[in-house]
Amino acid sequence: MKASRYSSPPRIPLDDRSWPDATLGAPPRWLSTDLRDGNQALSRPMSPERKLVMFDLLVGMGYKEIEIGFPTASRDEHDFVRLLIERGHIPDDVLVSVLTPAREELIEATMASLRGAARATLHLYNATSPAARRLVLGVNRQECKDLAVHGTHLVMKYADSLLDGCDLRFQYSPEHFNDTELDFSLEVCEAVMDVWQPGPDRPITLNFPTTVERFTPNLFADQIEWMDRHLSHRPHRCLSVHPHNDRGTGVAAAELAMLAGAERVEGCLFGNGERAGNVCLVTLGLNLAAQGIDPGIDFGDLDGVRRIVEECTGIAVSPRHPYGGDLVYTAFSGGHQDAIKKGFDAMASQAAVAGRDRSELPWAVPYLLVDPQDVGRTYEAVVRVTSQSGKGGAAYVMSSRYGMNLPRGLQAEFAQLVQSLADDGGEVAPERIMEAFADEYVVPGVPAFEAPGAVATLHIDGEPDGADWAATIAAIRTAMDRRGLVTRVVRLMGGASVRRGEEIAVYAECDLDGDAVWGVGIEPDVCAAALAAVGSAMARARRDGLLPGGLPGGARDDGQRARRLGAARLRRVMAKR
Amino acid sequence: MKASRYSSPPRIPLDDRSWPDATLGAPPRWLSTDLRDGNQALSRPMSPERKLVMFDLLVGMGYKEIEIGFPTASRDEHDFVRLLIERGHIPDDVLVSVLTPAREELIEATMASLRGAARATLHLYNATSPAARRLVLGVNRQECKDLAVHGTHLVMKYADSLLDGCDLRFQYSPEHFNDTELDFSLEVCEAVMDVWQPGPDRPITLNFPTTVERFTPNLFADQIEWMDRHLSHRPHRCLSVHPHNDRGTGVAAAELAMLAGAERVEGCLFGNGERAGNVCLVTLGLNLAAQGIDPGIDFGDLDGVRRIVEECTGIAVSPRHPYGGDLVYTAFSGGHQDAIKKGFDAMASQAAVAGRDRSELPWAVPYLLVDPQDVGRTYEAVVRVTSQSGKGGAAYVMSSRYGMNLPRGLQAEFAQLVQSLADDGGEVAPERIMEAFADEYVVPGVPAFEAPGAVATLHIDGEPDGADWAATIAAIRTAMDRRGLVTRVVRLMGGASVRRGEEIAVYAECDLDGDAVWGVGIEPDVCAAALAAVGSAMARARRDGLLPGGLPGGARDDGQRARRLGAARLRRVMAKR
Repeated sequence: MKASRYSSPPRIPLDDRSWPDATLGAPPRWLSTDLRDGNQALSRPMSPERKLVMFDLLVGMGYKEIEIGFPTASRDEHDFVRLLIERGHIPDDVLVSVLTPAREELIEATMASLRGAARATLHLYNATSPAARRLVLGVNRQECKDLAVHGTHLVMKYADSLLDGCDLRFQYSPEHFNDTELDFSLEVCEAVMDVWQPGPDRPITLNFPTTVERFTPNLFADQIEWMDRHLSHRPHRCLSVHPHNDRGTGVAAAELAMLAGAERVEGCLFGNGERAGNVCLVTLGLNLAAQGIDPGIDFGDLDGVRRIVEECTGIAVSPRHPYGGDLVYTAFSGGHQDAIKKGFDAMASQAAVAGRDRSELPWAVPYLLVDPQDVGRTYEAVVRVTSQSGKGGAAYVMSSRYGMNLPRGLQAEFAQLVQSLADDGGEVAPERIMEAFADEYVVPGVPAFEAPGAVATLHIDGEPDGADWAATIAAIRTAMDRRGLVTRVVRLMGGASVRRGEEIAVYAECDLDGDAVWGVGIEPDVCAAALAAVGSAMARARRDGLLPGGLPGGARDDGQRARRLGAARLRRVMAKR
Repeated sequence: MKASRYSSPPRIPLDDRSWPDATLGAPPRWLSTDLRDGNQALSRPMSPERKLVMFDLLVGMGYKEIEIGFPTASRDEHDFVRLLIERGHIPDDVLVSVLTPAREELIEATMASLRGAARATLHLYNATSPAARRLVLGVNRQECKDLAVHGTHLVMKYADSLLDGCDLRFQYSPEHFNDTELDFSLEVCEAVMDVWQPGPDRPITLNFPTTVERFTPNLFADQIEWMDRHLSHRPHRCLSVHPHNDRGTGVAAAELAMLAGAERVEGCLFGNGERAGNVCLVTLGLNLAAQGIDPGIDFGDLDGVRRIVEECTGIAVSPRHPYGGDLVYTAFSGGHQDAIKKGFDAMASQAAVAGRDRSELPWAVPYLLVDPQDVGRTYEAVVRVTSQSGKGGAAYVMSSRYGMNLPRGLQAEFAQLVQSLADDGGEVAPERIMEAFADEYVVPGVPAFEAPGAVATLHIDGEPDGADWAATIAAIRTAMDRRGLVTRVVRLMGGASVRRGEEIAVYAECDLDGDAVWGVGIEPDVCAAALAAVGSAMARARRDGLLPGGLPGGARDDGQRARRLGAARLRRVMAKR
């Protein structure tokens, strides 16, 4: 590839730019062009039924400006505009718009398609860049400006003759704005405004597209700040941008343009649109939310939004798409999983202390830009376990999915077991992790142990309703003493994920001459759970030859059967939680 | 979603920033972390075989720095590092690196994994942000800095004891750099450099990740410019960035950071990596090329690169991914298709005049950021025809795919026919377009017409080898005169897509009392083609009742059969071209 075929960026005459010192404040006016620019870019344009689904989705999410089509592009496009108007689908607070090139027969037909609408925006465009003037239109600057001026006159003429009683707004776009000489864009926009005569009840929207995104987004911001400084009629004109994503910097172009003065942004959900797409309205909106600014759009069921968009466009959202992709709240690496678990635990403690729900607290979990809950995602997908995972991964799954808060020593030991399951290179599903845990640590039917002189630490996970804690501990000690065991009882605070329930988990760490052997018991009664936990540990110790006698062959089989029973029981218990 | 849960950006103390006035020059040093950060983020991490395929791809494309793994994360990771070294897979000019946390046993094991390498980079990191210090590491600033300093000492110690004879480079990353206080990042980096003592033969890479991308990319550029100004050892330290894409602005963050002083960028092909991914190296590289800067990487077979990446990661590249997605060189809308066709035609004429190949000329086709040919894409996918398409679409397909340059009047008429085929809402395939064209316009077996008084314009598409043009035209006139036809002959210049061949297409536009009727003939002899074209037009006119007599029922059937024969013939002809 000869890079020399491509030209370097032009110099933008703006040395005293102010946008890099600006900060984002209120959200811009959003316009969804999913039904126009997005629809035009599909190998199967949306059917009227799908368009209606998309329109209702946009309205439901809170978009107040929606471009509903290009009525002269095809019969379908025209008919859908009529359908929305005639069947009364357009809410009073939603402003629809339609696009037309600056040619008389098309302007007339486009405006006729709006008959009967109470409010609407007529969006007029013509190409203004030097290449488009020379190559596509065959006009010089004056003739190009005349197209826009004449088009504006025609819009006013047909507004009078065709749209009496309609509250008609006007939008003008110099197409290929980012490739047009700035002074010429200004000249054309001023000429258009001279005709339209913006005023308090005659606002105008001037919309600047990066028709093909060509240079770094700071240059687009410079162009926008230059326009904003030079354009007249400030109170009555709205400066809008329409970024495409050919360089993968559409989101940045929109954001830097907002810093530079853009008050309105046109885009599509999940970045649908010609070629590499329009700027993604989901990303822009949630980017604002993620820095404390309410975007005014409801993203609370983002998976639902995604399903509808995928159905309407026929294009799958990438698993790595910001905020909405399948994998963006997922951590596979051990370090990340560990930190995420610590973050969730800390927030749970903080919530417990404050007596508030986590969703009320400032978000502070590492490696996750926003709380998955805020966009309707569950925890379960956050941590996924592969060979790249450390002790945090399996522990997180046990805690978030099954409500079991393993003590640190048990986490580390169990992680090795789980990593051996990932040996084939694949992911280990939560169900498989839980099954492995139950198979290994929950050995039922052996509380009748005796262990003279052994020392056990019991970690109690959960809180029986209305339990007398002191009496509970005393009962446990008595039961253990009777079997010759020295015990230390630890109450696991767990996090918000510890749920009150009828079954209690107890993790027993038994010190057998310096070897730590873990066992787990799960019973409705905390004392029974403690006995079962120590019994499990003893059975495992015998299995591994750490206690004299071991298990005879027959007993081994019994042990395996017992472990299977234990797994079944754990599944039953967990299904109830 | 309560946006108030999320914090607004910090103030970066940089009022006299210079990066917005900078322009991109030479490409940065690229580091691919596909085999480390990318691999860690997969639900199925790559097998050793796939890792080797990925490594060879990266080397083949021209990447000179490749992070090959996190040797202490798993046995697989360690073994792959050994495999590359022991089997001699690493070319002399490629510098591999491995990542390790700042803990002694991990540093030692990581460096041991490099034994036998002639050159390598040891990449050390520890988390430095306030949240990570408090929540994950449980350390204060001093203790956090000590981790980095002690880690650096250990790297030097084990370099001596384990890696004698290895040309060992050193890289340090303060993890969560973008969330770390700038003065603390500086303090830690200076402390690390105090230990390492950078010099002409002891360079150091300081790498600044947006571990989780959190704010607009201009703020990251401010952070980078601040660091670049304050860091000592300028000639011997390389300032590197490692952007993630949580806000969809990873590409912009990298580019603005390059303006601000970053000399090296770490990323992954097609933006693979944790969550929303690492910055995309394909987009960054081609963004440079698209503004005239050679990235030093071979993107000439981008579809091939994509196939390998998809195979290795198990993640499909989005059809809207810049440069590499299926749809990014495709235009569906009529206006875009028209302009693209004009652009290609103009470039073809320019190439013909200059006697050069198109790939040698400055790129100047509207709506396409780069020439698809430059990344190994063919023309055929550029224009796809749906109900949103105008006359340009079908004409482009006929020209680019079948080498037939339809005159404008025929383009417009044929477009209506094609649009009717798109009525079901779907796309019309090129083969279907050609078939419809042949069925409608190429009616063979009827050159024996008589048309006293009719006027025909003959558009001749193609150039017979060694033809005497004056004699050819004279022969055509004679043949037409003999049948009572008044003719005007137009030679279509066509574009580069007109191929010399044994078959010539002639488009006849017959004026029958004001009605223009088109017919097409395709024959090895230009005169025969002209006769066939007029014959086709006459047959169509009779079919439509524009000539007296019409076709009797039986003849109609013959006509349909003849048209089918015509289509078969056209297909045969076109297959030869």
